[in-house]
Amino acid sequence: MEKFTLKQIGVIRTPYAEAAAAPPQGKFEAEVAGTVEVFDEYAPGLQDIEGFSHITLLYYFHKAASGGLVVKPYLDDARHGVFATRHPGRPNHLGMTTVRLVERRGNVLAVAGVDMLDGTPLLDVKPYVSEFDLVRGNVRCGWLAGKIPPIP
Amino acid sequence: MEKFTLKQIGVIRTPYAEAAAAPPQGKFEAEVAGTVEVFDEYAPGLQDIEGFSHITLLYYFHKAASGGLVVKPYLDDARHGVFATRHPGRPNHLGMTTVRLVERRGNVLAVAGVDMLDGTPLLDVKPYVSEFDLVRGNVRCGWLAGKIPPIP
Repeated sequence: MEKFTLKQIGVIRTPYAEAAAAPPQGKFEAEVAGTVEVFDEYAPGLQDIEGFSHITLLYYFHKAASGGLVVKPYLDDARHGVFATRHPGRPNHLGMTTVRLVERRGNVLAVAGVDMLDGTPLLDVKPYVSEFDLVRGNVRCGWLAGKIPPIP
Repeated sequence: MEKFTLKQIGVIRTPYAEAAAAPPQGKFEAEVAGTVEVFDEYAPGLQDIEGFSHITLLYYFHKAASGGLVVKPYLDDARHGVFATRHPGRPNHLGMTTVRLVERRGNVLAVAGVDMLDGTPLLDVKPYVSEFDLVRGNVRCGWLAGKIPPIP
């Protein structure tokens, strides 16, 4: 089993100081604003990102305690394997949220639809591309069927 | 700047021994089969994953050389900031592909739509949930507009 060392490349600023305040997913609060501050040394990597309306942020769940491999997710009372949930207490603490890119101001990205805690370490930014990322057709969502609140 | 140590939790098997053979994204070869072998110690985390039709794999681009912060992507001759591309030579080597989950056989997931190299180290598995992940409405895709080949 190999190990990999990842570097923080920036910090995500949001209104959420603690997990209890944050929505289960960004889609539930699509207009909540945050900023993605990319450290100066990585800023050249943002060239042309302003052409994209949405970006996917990969980040480190720095405040999440490990919940073990079988966890109780936010949206259910029953327990499920952590890889069948989006629970933050996952083995590698990797978080993923697609947000709307409102504006780029130098090395700072103003975004909407954040769900992560204030101060979350940023690991990567990828452009959201419908042709690559959008799943068309019939999508089954397992135990989540019927448990997802209406998205505003 | 913090650093984080991530552990390989499994290995992805695909028909692609080298980058030149792989498609730019899994969507271009949606029926190409692969397997995700989750190491035994993480197998309990797969409980109930079989209810999901699609999963997003997060993995480590283990063969990618760093291309610097401004790179020439597969689908363009011009150079762009690495965070405005899906180029594998990115600072933290994090890859992300949503695949179709065909079948679970114990700790092995049979999937379709792979684009990563054979032997790619797995870092996380997340269920794809349309309500969380699908961006509706107008999506702008910057420099990629007009450059994406037809998806079969």
